[in-house]
Amino acid sequence: MQDSRDIRLAVIPGDGIGTEVVAEGLKVLDAAGIKLETTGYDLGAKRYHASGETLPDAVLEELRGYDAILLGAVGDPSVPPGVLERDLLLKLRFELDHYVNLRPVKLFPGVETPLGGAKPADIDMVVVREGTEGPYAGAGGVLRKGTPHEIATQESLNTAYGVERVVRYAFEKAQSRPRKKLTLVHKTNVLTYAGDLWARVTDLVAPEFPEVTVDYCHVDAASMFFVNQPERFDVVVTDNLFGDILTDIGAAIAGGIGLAASGNVNPDRTAPSMFEPVHGSAPDIAGQGKADPTATILSVAMLLDHLGLAAEAARIEQAVAGDLLDRRGVSAARSTREIGDDIAARVAG
Amino acid sequence: MQDSRDIRLAVIPGDGIGTEVVAEGLKVLDAAGIKLETTGYDLGAKRYHASGETLPDAVLEELRGYDAILLGAVGDPSVPPGVLERDLLLKLRFELDHYVNLRPVKLFPGVETPLGGAKPADIDMVVVREGTEGPYAGAGGVLRKGTPHEIATQESLNTAYGVERVVRYAFEKAQSRPRKKLTLVHKTNVLTYAGDLWARVTDLVAPEFPEVTVDYCHVDAASMFFVNQPERFDVVVTDNLFGDILTDIGAAIAGGIGLAASGNVNPDRTAPSMFEPVHGSAPDIAGQGKADPTATILSVAMLLDHLGLAAEAARIEQAVAGDLLDRRGVSAARSTREIGDDIAARVAG
Ligand SMILES: CC(C)[C@H](C(=O)O)[C@@H](O)C(=O)O
Ligand SMILES: CC(C)[C@H](C(=O)O)[C@@H](O)C(=O)O
Repeated sequence: MQDSRDIRLAVIPGDGIGTEVVAEGLKVLDAAGIKLETTGYDLGAKRYHASGETLPDAVLEELRGYDAILLGAVGDPSVPPGVLERDLLLKLRFELDHYVNLRPVKLFPGVETPLGGAKPADIDMVVVREGTEGPYAGAGGVLRKGTPHEIATQESLNTAYGVERVVRYAFEKAQSRPRKKLTLVHKTNVLTYAGDLWARVTDLVAPEFPEVTVDYCHVDAASMFFVNQPERFDVVVTDNLFGDILTDIGAAIAGGIGLAASGNVNPDRTAPSMFEPVHGSAPDIAGQGKADPTATILSVAMLLDHLGLAAEAARIEQAVAGDLLDRRGVSAARSTREIGDDIAARVAG
Repeated sequence: MQDSRDIRLAVIPGDGIGTEVVAEGLKVLDAAGIKLETTGYDLGAKRYHASGETLPDAVLEELRGYDAILLGAVGDPSVPPGVLERDLLLKLRFELDHYVNLRPVKLFPGVETPLGGAKPADIDMVVVREGTEGPYAGAGGVLRKGTPHEIATQESLNTAYGVERVVRYAFEKAQSRPRKKLTLVHKTNVLTYAGDLWARVTDLVAPEFPEVTVDYCHVDAASMFFVNQPERFDVVVTDNLFGDILTDIGAAIAGGIGLAASGNVNPDRTAPSMFEPVHGSAPDIAGQGKADPTATILSVAMLLDHLGLAAEAARIEQAVAGDLLDRRGVSAARSTREIGDDIAARVAG
């Protein structure tokens, strides 16, 4: 609980629209009357070009000292693909043991969804994506690169330890929600080694949560159901890669990537959790005030909730809900800053 | 070209609704005046329970002798997950070198899509899914199974040989379509070894097809764009697992799994290609005449096209298009057989 003192927040605006949306997130935190002590970190493409550094060890150690981290977005076409993702973003998730990548998929009233028939009650789920292993481990290799005999491998590493803790978290989350339904998503019929581990661990943990209904869905079917039967899902638990894919489908059905929030959570609090919009750095619209800061603002609400400030979190979420409702049918586009101002005003008022 | 002689067709109805839909596929082939010599193979759950056999070597050798294979669906809850998938379906795809898993995603006029704003012109693409390697290789293992120290691995195997041939096929496909656009889908920023191979091979083949516009999309973004910008895609080329996921999203946006056709194609014709609906055996509705045979009938059209009978293939596709248009707004459900009869009548007429 943070009530008694300031929140010490590390801020990594990152690249592209990251800077713009993070400014609005901080504005809203301020409007909510949160006492903040923020420190900015200039990690991302600029730092990489200037010094070759992505995430220096000393910075990583410093980051461990904060209550939480707010991240905008990293990535730029000028940096070789994978460098900032692997050596900065994923390194943070792995090193700070963010084993729960929490991604709500929620259609707010008034928001347009590409799904013609869907109503807010149909799209209200939370995806619990594993964040520290699976195909994201970086394991693999290449032989005879650039020749006709090249082979490239990519390995998914899954441990009982890693799977059990995220599955248990997902059960707890399901237990706390009205529908109390958990869907495991994997591809047990093809990825038999990893899938079998996930399925067995889920079966093992299930009896601890007798009120939770457990369901299983192959990832291909789940991807389809996100589109044509989203009401099937309440809490979804899945591996790192399937969670990446499903939460982008989730963003699409819930009104777009501009609204999708996420938390990289370390539930054991052995290191700070990190909150970030699901969207990327969008270099094509960077610096133009066109980015929607809503995803970042909703991520800030998740951050407060994680730190025990549930009332403030709810106030921000309600302010966003109000703002989204008022956008209905309005065609005039507001700038990043205007949207931030409007939401901040609702929070303050 | 098959004009001069009968098509020798191996038929594997399989499990659940497989039998029902395959019967309608054969009915339509017959109505199209195709001279067929069919041989049925009772592979699937029943055979597995009776003899423990999934795909005996002798049967596999026999199957090599046909012009093509028509498969309904395999899988049953009574069989341990993965057994029929791995030892029958995937074994056929791998052994018969079906390196192109061809899956059109096409919204026919009159068909309802969950995407409110989408028109047939917006959803008209072909997914070229690699079919013989990647995460489907079955590589992986498990240590200390059932203990808290268990580790399970799953390995994606990718070769320059395997990637290049499917990428080249996809370029040819793109070249033959009016838009001439090819999108490579992978996750190069995380699956760096495999992704790099796919990206380099695509770059290497591209100059052979100067008219084709090449695009790249991460699998998470592509999954989102299938839902909110399907018009982005013309031909998509991707690995075995991403293709599995994307084509189920594709089925969802194009009106459901009851309409999604596929071909497991060996373009070099060193072994017969195999055509099958994308849907599974649906044990919950098996034997009730509720299954939609349209996906199988469209798969049969793909089969004819593959065998050089383009006119007959087009006639079947047009018959299906007509049938789908007439379904519009009609609420009375027809049985599997009635739908087959109606389409067959259009083909014959
Ligand atoms: C940028 C990329 C490494 C990242 C991921 O794949 O996890 C992103 O897509 C996300 O979902 O946060
Ligand atoms: C049944 C299963 C093994 C198969 C696959 O994953 O390829 C199916 O989902 C498909 O898409 O044909």
